[in-house]
Amino acid sequence: MKYFLGCELTYDIAANTTMILNVEVQRGSSQTIISERFVAPPGVEPQVHEVPETGNRYQRLHLLPGTSVIRYEAEVITSPTVHDPASVVDIAVTDLPFEVLNHLYPSRYCQSDRLARFAWREFGSIEGSFQKVTGICNWIFDHVDYIAGTSDGSTSALETFDYRAGVCRDFAHLGITLTRALGIPARYVSVYAFGLVPQDFHAIFEAYVGGRWYLFDATRLIPIDGVVRIAIGRDAADTAFSTFYGQLVDQPKKVWIDRLDGEALEAEWTTSAVSLG
Amino acid sequence: MKYFLGCELTYDIAANTTMILNVEVQRGSSQTIISERFVAPPGVEPQVHEVPETGNRYQRLHLLPGTSVIRYEAEVITSPTVHDPASVVDIAVTDLPFEVLNHLYPSRYCQSDRLARFAWREFGSIEGSFQKVTGICNWIFDHVDYIAGTSDGSTSALETFDYRAGVCRDFAHLGITLTRALGIPARYVSVYAFGLVPQDFHAIFEAYVGGRWYLFDATRLIPIDGVVRIAIGRDAADTAFSTFYGQLVDQPKKVWIDRLDGEALEAEWTTSAVSLG
Amino acid sequence: MKYFLGCELTYDIAANTTMILNVEVQRGSSQTIISERFVAPPGVEPQVHEVPETGNRYQRLHLLPGTSVIRYEAEVITSPTVHDPASVVDIAVTDLPFEVLNHLYPSRYCQSDRLARFAWREFGSIEGSFQKVTGICNWIFDHVDYIAGTSDGSTSALETFDYRAGVCRDFAHLGITLTRALGIPARYVSVYAFGLVPQDFHAIFEAYVGGRWYLFDATRLIPIDGVVRIAIGRDAADTAFSTFYGQLVDQPKKVWIDRLDGEALEAEWTTSAVSLG
Amino acid sequence: MKYFLGCELTYDIAANTTMILNVEVQRGSSQTIISERFVAPPGVEPQVHEVPETGNRYQRLHLLPGTSVIRYEAEVITSPTVHDPASVVDIAVTDLPFEVLNHLYPSRYCQSDRLARFAWREFGSIEGSFQKVTGICNWIFDHVDYIAGTSDGSTSALETFDYRAGVCRDFAHLGITLTRALGIPARYVSVYAFGLVPQDFHAIFEAYVGGRWYLFDATRLIPIDGVVRIAIGRDAADTAFSTFYGQLVDQPKKVWIDRLDGEALEAEWTTSAVSLG
Repeated sequence: MKYFLGCELTYDIAANTTMILNVEVQRGSSQTIISERFVAPPGVEPQVHEVPETGNRYQRLHLLPGTSVIRYEAEVITSPTVHDPASVVDIAVTDLPFEVLNHLYPSRYCQSDRLARFAWREFGSIEGSFQKVTGICNWIFDHVDYIAGTSDGSTSALETFDYRAGVCRDFAHLGITLTRALGIPARYVSVYAFGLVPQDFHAIFEAYVGGRWYLFDATRLIPIDGVVRIAIGRDAADTAFSTFYGQLVDQPKKVWIDRLDGEALEAEWTTSAVSLG
Repeated sequence: MKYFLGCELTYDIAANTTMILNVEVQRGSSQTIISERFVAPPGVEPQVHEVPETGNRYQRLHLLPGTSVIRYEAEVITSPTVHDPASVVDIAVTDLPFEVLNHLYPSRYCQSDRLARFAWREFGSIEGSFQKVTGICNWIFDHVDYIAGTSDGSTSALETFDYRAGVCRDFAHLGITLTRALGIPARYVSVYAFGLVPQDFHAIFEAYVGGRWYLFDATRLIPIDGVVRIAIGRDAADTAFSTFYGQLVDQPKKVWIDRLDGEALEAEWTTSAVSLG
Repeated sequence: MKYFLGCELTYDIAANTTMILNVEVQRGSSQTIISERFVAPPGVEPQVHEVPETGNRYQRLHLLPGTSVIRYEAEVITSPTVHDPASVVDIAVTDLPFEVLNHLYPSRYCQSDRLARFAWREFGSIEGSFQKVTGICNWIFDHVDYIAGTSDGSTSALETFDYRAGVCRDFAHLGITLTRALGIPARYVSVYAFGLVPQDFHAIFEAYVGGRWYLFDATRLIPIDGVVRIAIGRDAADTAFSTFYGQLVDQPKKVWIDRLDGEALEAEWTTSAVSLG
Repeated sequence: MKYFLGCELTYDIAANTTMILNVEVQRGSSQTIISERFVAPPGVEPQVHEVPETGNRYQRLHLLPGTSVIRYEAEVITSPTVHDPASVVDIAVTDLPFEVLNHLYPSRYCQSDRLARFAWREFGSIEGSFQKVTGICNWIFDHVDYIAGTSDGSTSALETFDYRAGVCRDFAHLGITLTRALGIPARYVSVYAFGLVPQDFHAIFEAYVGGRWYLFDATRLIPIDGVVRIAIGRDAADTAFSTFYGQLVDQPKKVWIDRLDGEALEAEWTTSAVSLG
């Protein structure tokens, strides 16, 4: 699928501010960047960094007082791998590659050590790891209400599990937590999401099953094969689209993703197993 | 039912210690004390206090270094009110007597403000307040494991809700929390419990439905009509059987309750609505 | 001191709503109500209740859809007892009257069991119980920032202790928690507060020292002898000025308290020990 | 410094168990392994993995029912870099290498987002980043009691900050949390620690100041230049010396580290800035 996507961020800088952005899409065999453009404010030279282990791409900008507009846009072709869930073969936790083991550990917002008993009781008897994670997503969708304003930046999965309301960040954290609690590696993914209304950065998660990271979204707000990956990490602590040191007021941001390939412009749902590699 | 019950508490006092005990049974129309005896260590004169609002009975003892043995024993006749649950008439939260309203509030170990969404979704559609609380007890029994050593004195209902394991104190706290979350007053009750194995002080809860406080126990460890009430309170913070200021080591305590009425000495289960008034 | 005080509450009722208000001032030897008037919406007959143990006064109103205006106003004379802090004699925790013991227990928002080690280390060496509580208030004032919007209805003293910001409710909760942690009974008090800018209901706390409940306010926003007591309780869970069951939107409320006694209309500070009995 | 170190772990395996160990020391320019030997139970062939980013070394063993003894021993020469703290030059958070930024993020046991206000108020005015972290360690040593049994595997830095007691793991977590809260990267380090009494695995932390990871230990139990690094990670979640999937009972473990270089066998203290690279 071919997309034109991007964002425009506007800040009223009150005092010298250093901003670290993580809005550029990842490069990879399933995400080909045809063209992209990052426009910093006049006179600002970004430092760039791409993390080898994750592919996350950062830009650091030193901004002076005044209004700063930052714009990123890209043409991207994604070629997600799509499988029949029934064909995804299980890997026992004892046979996982060492590389993915750290995605079993609890993290700031995903205290998987506390929900193991619940997770096993509720999902343990579902056959198949992919199906277990699907069961987790269905459970979250059925038991947690998507309500803006019920959580904030310090809300963790345990609080969402208790309070039963949240936004995409909270749905992803709870999904990750329950997945890890079953001994299945899981990570947080920030994305541009085709079909999301209203448009914004979106958060979903990936679980490592059958030797591959498959995409999951318990919010059911978007077709899972319509995402373009920006960043992966253990949870939201690792994948903020912007972090700053200084003083500023942020104006409303614009985020967009449109299809360019002449195919149906409508979002279509899939229950297939979808991976971006 | 007629019982002989009591406890024997042994402390090795290391330095002058003030001990506040709450082990004597409540007096009331449904709990008649035939005889009772409180034996303080030689030379110790207890101060006594019975709280008018609750009926809880305290004894304060100033203990000197050495071994102190404290013994309480009583013959008690209980005459619980037993109703068919189907006959218990609902009272809307908006029509509750003012006197019971404070048992709707969240307390130290029962953060009912955080579980309202869950409680309404899970139990809201059950017809009848008594049946709702029964539903809560069934849910706890089905979803929480009774395992000694998984909780401690700082464990609250939210932690039990997450971790899904605990002991009688935790079962009672979670029951109270979910009951209050539905707008039904609930309180913590410490009791002598006939049929409990091994014998110890036991914790259950009461819910105010149909104009009366009915007894509930989500552990299913005892017949609910075989309890003798010691103390009521908002949660375990209010009803400790002993509190001390000083320095001591406690030896294993003895707690007992035996039937004296020549009737079946076996515990028998009931699903009736049982109240001690 | 003589005051004219009151409040006006406006609600847009969307569906039949039961409202429980706790806005009337307490009666007592130190708070004489010269006159008072509670104006319910036309056709609404409030049920009233005064709790014997606390003196809190409730009104329950059944409100129909539409706009409801509720007004309370009173002329009140307060005659606080004022002592030199140096003259307040200590009572050991082991000699406290039984009646106040339950204000030593931890409560929903005041987990005093968790901060005992800190409290003793920081305040344990201060001579005198009154001075210990003063030390607690000074510490809170020095270490916690008063910032609106940093807390909400679920914020407890532990969170304020960690985050070091909050509003009057949080300052009172932390003060209560640290006071109880030292073995000194403490309770939450909602008040009309002369000199508070901007005017609103205010929250402070009382500690039981020297045989009396003395007033404390770690916010230093008001003169402590200029308060009129509405409600006392273990913490904010017990003392909400309004609780409702139904559906409504609340309009901005008005709260006022003015001096009527021709004396200085300016707030003046005191470091005396002040009690309303 | 030259050491002979190692550990011997004994497990009574009840059912087939997969064990992942992380007990071998890291290789590096400051840690030269002269010789080492890992002895798995007879017939067990460990899979090994060394993580490129961290240098952590894992061994995975599939153990059958029965008693399994696992032994690791090594001769290691460490050559820590030692600087005068006054010579360590500050790096502004805005100039940190991108590689270390993820050690600024909060993690499972180190919720640095919640303690920023405290950290800046308490340590913000200390000149120099190294000195700030030293100030944090001094504060922890002065304000937190080292008491075994006051924490468990789910205890996080916030709980230690409230409760003011813990063990090495908790001291390290709180140190990391406060360091990150000041905008200084920090990570958890598990070590063999010369001079630790009684011998066991030990936990300390590293802060990234002046372009280097310096070692810190708020417990003051060991000389900081006498450690040999096993694993680094965000917190204890990343660095468990053993993780298992199966069923077992663990017997008491042996851990040792002795000096082989003929120099003083006594632990000597240093306040220098010490780094293992």
